[in-house]
Parts: sequence; structure tokens; C-alpha cells
Amino acid sequence: MKLNKEENFSEWFDTVLRESGLYDYGRYPVKGMGVWPPFGFKLRKLVLNIIRDLLDSTGHEEVLFPVLIPKTLLEKESEHIRGFEGEVFWVTKGGHEDLDVPLALRPTSETAISYMESFWISSYKQLPMKLYQIVPVYRYETKATRPLIRLREVSTFKEAHTAHESFEGADSQCAEAIEIYKKVFDRLGIPYMISQRPPWDKFAGALYTVAFDTVMPDGRVLQIGTVHHLGQNFSVPFEVRFHTEDGDKDYVWQTSYGLSDRVIASLVAVHGDERGLVLPPEVAPVQVVIVPIPQKEEEQQRKVLEEAKRVEEELKARGWRTVLDDRDELTPGAKYYEWELKGVPFRIEIGKKEVEGDELTVARRDLKKRVKVKKGEIHQRLKEMSDDMLNNMRERAWSFMKSRIKRVRSLEEAKELVEKRYVVELPWCGSKECGLRVDEEVGRVLGVPLDEDAEAKGERCAVCGREAKWWIRVAKTY
Amino acid sequence: MKLNKEENFSEWFDTVLRESGLYDYGRYPVKGMGVWPPFGFKLRKLVLNIIRDLLDSTGHEEVLFPVLIPKTLLEKESEHIRGFEGEVFWVTKGGHEDLDVPLALRPTSETAISYMESFWISSYKQLPMKLYQIVPVYRYETKATRPLIRLREVSTFKEAHTAHESFEGADSQCAEAIEIYKKVFDRLGIPYMISQRPPWDKFAGALYTVAFDTVMPDGRVLQIGTVHHLGQNFSVPFEVRFHTEDGDKDYVWQTSYGLSDRVIASLVAVHGDERGLVLPPEVAPVQVVIVPIPQKEEEQQRKVLEEAKRVEEELKARGWRTVLDDRDELTPGAKYYEWELKGVPFRIEIGKKEVEGDELTVARRDLKKRVKVKKGEIHQRLKEMSDDMLNNMRERAWSFMKSRIKRVRSLEEAKELVEKRYVVELPWCGSKECGLRVDEEVGRVLGVPLDEDAEAKGERCAVCGREAKWWIRVAKTY
Repeated sequence: MKLNKEENFSEWFDTVLRESGLYDYGRYPVKGMGVWPPFGFKLRKLVLNIIRDLLDSTGHEEVLFPVLIPKTLLEKESEHIRGFEGEVFWVTKGGHEDLDVPLALRPTSETAISYMESFWISSYKQLPMKLYQIVPVYRYETKATRPLIRLREVSTFKEAHTAHESFEGADSQCAEAIEIYKKVFDRLGIPYMISQRPPWDKFAGALYTVAFDTVMPDGRVLQIGTVHHLGQNFSVPFEVRFHTEDGDKDYVWQTSYGLSDRVIASLVAVHGDERGLVLPPEVAPVQVVIVPIPQKEEEQQRKVLEEAKRVEEELKARGWRTVLDDRDELTPGAKYYEWELKGVPFRIEIGKKEVEGDELTVARRDLKKRVKVKKGEIHQRLKEMSDDMLNNMRERAWSFMKSRIKRVRSLEEAKELVEKRYVVELPWCGSKECGLRVDEEVGRVLGVPLDEDAEAKGERCAVCGREAKWWIRVAKTY
Repeated sequence: MKLNKEENFSEWFDTVLRESGLYDYGRYPVKGMGVWPPFGFKLRKLVLNIIRDLLDSTGHEEVLFPVLIPKTLLEKESEHIRGFEGEVFWVTKGGHEDLDVPLALRPTSETAISYMESFWISSYKQLPMKLYQIVPVYRYETKATRPLIRLREVSTFKEAHTAHESFEGADSQCAEAIEIYKKVFDRLGIPYMISQRPPWDKFAGALYTVAFDTVMPDGRVLQIGTVHHLGQNFSVPFEVRFHTEDGDKDYVWQTSYGLSDRVIASLVAVHGDERGLVLPPEVAPVQVVIVPIPQKEEEQQRKVLEEAKRVEEELKARGWRTVLDDRDELTPGAKYYEWELKGVPFRIEIGKKEVEGDELTVARRDLKKRVKVKKGEIHQRLKEMSDDMLNNMRERAWSFMKSRIKRVRSLEEAKELVEKRYVVELPWCGSKECGLRVDEEVGRVLGVPLDEDAEAKGERCAVCGREAKWWIRVAKTY
């Protein structure tokens, strides 16, 4: 390691993913597709636990749809297919036969789910219906691929699909989705900007799209979650109709919202340091590693191992994911290196002093500092330190992100700052024309902020000089 | 409902899957692919919990590989590709471009995993390496498809892949896998026969294959699990080499073993009855349903609902997956019908008597009988009845299966019984020639039993009349 994530983020990121055993990328012989080895799979599972927990407790139900969507189905919503057709993988053969209808590897599942909802939904009593699935999705990306950031197989896509009685029902579902995503990112300490994407950059088939973005260590912005109000754009062509409470028939109003592998990409990028991963305890596959310090005297050595085992058993019994690293062939230093790379929050070092005294030495991954903890209080103190660690990581991450956002008033300033990888906020008149010029000349328009007062009172549009309506966020993006 | 599963199994099965909300099949517009709706997804998850639990606690680690395997990779083991090439779905296009190398939707992952193991494994210290993943697999089936039994998208495939230092290491891994699968099926009450598949019917690329089979209500046999000793058949072409303890280099010895959607198919088929699903409590998405009996007097009605809520809260607090069905628009009878269809193990009916007395009325799904339970003992009694229910279901299922297996000595008797959908055991000389004649004239040869004494001492081969070596099982199969 010893790479600097700010100076050479890309290399740092690839190295940390590979060396920590989080995601094996670049060796599997299909471009843009990687493998989750055991360590990464465990992290992924713990992150998904948080997402499932927050969805299940708000009335979402998990389902599983086939990966293949017939071309005829994908084409039913015309704007949707235009948005995706250039980047769909097509299955055209079964065995030695050509298929009658090409089958798409799902790029997203609005069409498949709307199709089945037309069978499932008949009455307002079934609404809202809030479904989600966690599946891989596929995009034939022509841009350069990057592990967990731009993949041809997005191996982890949580897509929620909801159906409602009214526009307003779908609208407040979008608000609920935003609240859920805030909680997901807060529990992971990942900072976010929430912006309403400009109309020319919304999801293909949506009325509007709200997106979560974060700032990567190199200053470029990564979209990490999206929420779409779909209106009746899918329910009409797919004929998802229901009997209203008044006895009429209407098409349902839908939303969809998604999170991907990028949640884990940002978790890694935002918190990591020159030693590797730094993981919040809630999602760390190993929360505590115990390293016995080798002793010259045999009797001392025995006592150290005994104490290490005692602590291991106590912590495991208390539910801590604990590893006792008693490998003989490695020095403590080599072990520290390895477990720090894997982002283990707490390391307990046990030597002569710890055997004889009533304190344990605990090293905290986020602060790279050692503290002494009374043996009888270890469980309680680890709990407190876990909370403190997440808060500390979250605050550091937020303050980094905030330091990268600047309000400016002219295109020139904006260009200069975006060139230096800042996110800028510019006054904007609201016209598509001016928006597209910003897109072209400055950087990607993220949209109007929804997480702060975005009205640009008394300001002039940075492009045309007319009265400004909103601040818009602009940045270099992934 | 009111279909008889023995007389018309196929219709019974399709109807139960659809009407219970377990698996939506036949409507999704790709042949051989279905949807897991919320109820079915929960059942699937609870079944997978058992499988994961048993694998994780025996040192298996979960991973996730891409769904796409390049043709060039799939072809590396020649016997393997011959076994699968006729039934592989091929991705040939990305966007509007033709791909250089066609990509297979994984039919199984020996090739992909062996390829990555060649990077991951270098030393005997890493062995055994026991990996598994739970993923969909794809077969372009030309035979008639059936929900959860013969699918083009097998949406739930648990495939384990292990690597060992020696033939013997892989051999005892196969034995461990068999023990694990026995536990899986025992916890689900599914009876099984364990047979070593004849050499002409082993997995493409294996040294030998051991299979679990069960008997469906129509007497046909369903393969529900397989265990393969792969020898070095994959490790040689994929160059999965390791440094041995002696300082030499060798190729690893591998096994693979799999369970699929058929676990759930057999769970449904084996235990279900004319009212629908009958689920063991451990995997029932709803374990207890509470049905309040409507009262004419308002005060009584209030008390009944109050008592129902009290019981609901108590059971939920004790960890029971409980639903209080207080819908006004349905009669108790309609509710019984619905929850019986979904296989809910326990129904608690609460009326005037239950409010006033100190007993609750509990209906057991497997026995279709009501019992009285003291209010203070409800949790304890449900626990006892859960154990009893699983035992009862398992015994019934085993005795049905055993009643369908007969030992006979002549081909004529065998034909007659197999025609009547019995599993027969025949004396066999061990020659491929005689085995293939049995395959042709009698039914599918399941192989030599591994779960009973299979030596056919003093018997004559039913085909050639020479001295017999083994009994072999033969049946009509799915």
C-alpha cells in the first residue's frame, strides 16, 4: 500500500479492492465483470442487511424476477427503450438454435415488473404495492469500466418498484425513498448531495429523477442512488389498471428507486486511507482482531495465548465478529498490516502487560491510536467506540465533501473550479438552453439541490444574465 | 383447490404454486422462467437460511461470480462442454455490436471458478478451499418445462466448489457434502434415496456422481441434489496448481455439489394436501395465524379483538412469525381456506370461549385437528408441536416413499412395477451393456444405492443372468 488516495485515487482504489480481498477485478475474462471473494461477499451482505432492514421495516416486500426480458417487452415504453437499447446485452441463441425473439439481460426491471403487476393488481385495496429485488443488472458500457463504479455486470442492484393510487401517492413514495436512502448512507457514514436531475438527464421513462451524489477523493462526483417518479408512463402501455375506491378504473402511478455496487465503492473510497480499508463496525466482516505478542519465555507465551483466547471467547459470546490471529509464521507487524488493509475497526494487542494487568490495549482503525480499556469493560467500551467511530468517520467524510463544494457566480470561475475538481453551484435561469451550455462548457449538471435552500434570489443566470431561479450543482462526474 | 395430488399431481402442483403465491409461473413472457412473489420469496429465503447455516458452519465461504462465461472458457474441459453445449443460452450482441466471443449464461460454474482458483490458490496451506454461491443457472431445455422442476432459468442454484490436496481429500469432501444434504432434507422432512449414478449418467467432467432422489406423489422420481468428485479434470486444463507440503507442485483435486429450486418443489409436493401447502414451521413465512371469530355483541367483539391482539403481541415477542387476520370483509371460513392454502402450521381461533376461559384453540395444519392449549403455555406448546409436526410430516413422507420402492428379480416384474410408477431395485452384473438395456427397457437407472446394503449376493443379473454384483435402482424420472 502506502498509496495516497487523494493524489492517485484510481490506483489506490484498484489496489485496495484487490489486496483486501474485497472485489477481484480485471482478471475474470469478461470485460467489466468481477468476482466477490469471501471477504468482499461478507461485507456486501452486511451492507445489504442494512438496506433490507430499512426497506422491510417500511412495508417493502422482496421478490425475484427473471434476468431475461424479451425485446418486445422492453420496447413497450418507447422513451425507455431509446434510453437503453444502445447498451443492452442480447441473448440470441439457445443451444444451436436462433431465438425467435431476442432476450435482453435486464438493464433494469420496470418493464418486467409492470408486466406482472398487470396480473397482480386489480384493486385500490392492494395499493400501495412496494416491491424490491436485489439482482445483477447489465449494461454494455462502451466507456472505460472501473471496479464497482462502471461495470458491465452491476452485480448488486437493489431496485424498488412501487405502485400507487395517485400522482401524490407516488410523489410521497419518492420522499419516503429519499428518507430511506439518507438512513442507509448515514449508517455507512457516506456523505451525500441530493439533487433533482435536470429534465434532460432524468431516467428514461420518468417524470422526474432525484439523485444522491457523493464526492470521491479525487474530487469527481459519483452518483450513488436514484429515485424516479414514473407517473403512468409504464402503467399505461403495460395496462396496470385498478378499481378505484369510487368504482372507476385507473392506471397505477409508479415509482422506482435504486442503489448499486456504488454504495460499496463509495464506502471504500470515502473512508479508506493509505493503509487500506476503514470500515464502520456495523458492516465490518471482522470487527475485532486479537493479536498475541510473542513472548520469549514459554510460560509467558502460554499465558498470552490463554488470555487472547479468553478475550476471543468473551467477545464472540457478546456477538462481536472476532478473529484471534495466532499464526506463528507472521510477526505482529505483518498481522497489523494485513488486518488494517481489511479495515478491521479494533485490534486488541495482548502481551505480558495485558496478561498481568487489568487493562487491554485496543487500537482503533479510524484514529490509528491505541487506548487502554479495563478488562471488565471491554464489551461496553467497544460498543461506545463503535458509535464514536462511525460518528467520527461520518463527520470527517462530510467535512471533506463540504470543502469541495463552492458557490460561484460566473462561468469562468465555475470552469476554473470544476477543472480543479470542485463541485460548483451556479445561479441558473431554469432554461434548458442555458443548462445544456453549462453541461458542455463547465461540467455535468447534477441538478437543483434538494438538501438546501436552492432559490437564487437576486442572482443572475451565469449563462444568459437573466434573472436566476435556482442554484444548480455542476461537477466532473464518473 | 380440492384437487387430489396423487391422482392429478401436475395440475395440483401448478395450482398450489400459483394460488398460494409461492411461484408465479406460466405468465412471465419467457418460456421456462417464473417469478418469486413476496410469499414465495420469503419461503425461499428461509430454506436458503438452512442451507447457508449448514454450509457456513462447516467452513464453506460464500462468493459471487459473474453470470457470463466466455465460450472459450466453457470449452476448456472437453467432456464438460459436450455435456452442456446443446443447452446453453448465448449472449452474442452488446448494444448493436456483435461480440467477439459469445458469452454463455452460466449453466454451472466449474469453469469460471476453476479459472479464478488458478489465481487464488498457490499453497497447500490454503487447502481445502470450500466455496459456494447461490445464483441462477440457465439451460435451454427442449423438454416440456415445469415450474421449479424443469426450468430454463433455475432461479435458485446453490453450487459448492471445493479444492483439495489429494484424491482422498476430495473423496471425503463428497462424504461431508452428503451428510450436509441429509441434514438439509431432514430439516425439511423430505425423504431421499442416495444413489451412485451409473458411469454413463454422471456429471459431464466428474469421476463419479452421487445423487439424492425423492419420489413425487405421482410416483415419478425427482433428482433433488448431486455431489460430484471432479478429480483433476478441471484443475489440469485450468492449471490450478499448488505447492505441496513436500515442496512439489500438483494440481488440486476438486468436488462440486448442488441443490436447486427442486428442494422447494419437493417440499411442496411431498407435504402438500388437498387444501394446499403444508410447511414445516422452520420455513413457514407465516407460522401462526390468529383468526378472531366475529361476535354479535359489540362488547364481545371488542374483547375478542383485544385477546387476539394480546396473543399476537406475545407470540411476536417470542419470535413467532405471526399474522392477526382481522379483515372485516372475510368470514373465518374464507380466512381458514386462504391460510391453509399457504401452509401456515398453526391457526389460533379466538372467540367468546377463548376470551372467557384460560385456553386457546389451536388448529394444526398437518393433522387438520384442533387442540386446546393453556394460555400461559402457548409459546412452549407451539414449540413442542413444531417439533412434533416436523417429525410427523417426515415420517409420513418417508413411509410413502418407502412404500413406492420394491425389490424384484426379473425384467418383466420390473417393467410392470415401473409402469405403475414404482421405484424398483434389480440385481445387476455391473456391465454397462446390461445397465443400458435396463435404461432402455425399464426406466432410468438411478444407480447403486449408497444408503443401504447394495451387494446382491447370490443373485443373478436381471438382464444377462450372470452373477449379480449390485442392486440398482430404476424408475420413471422427471
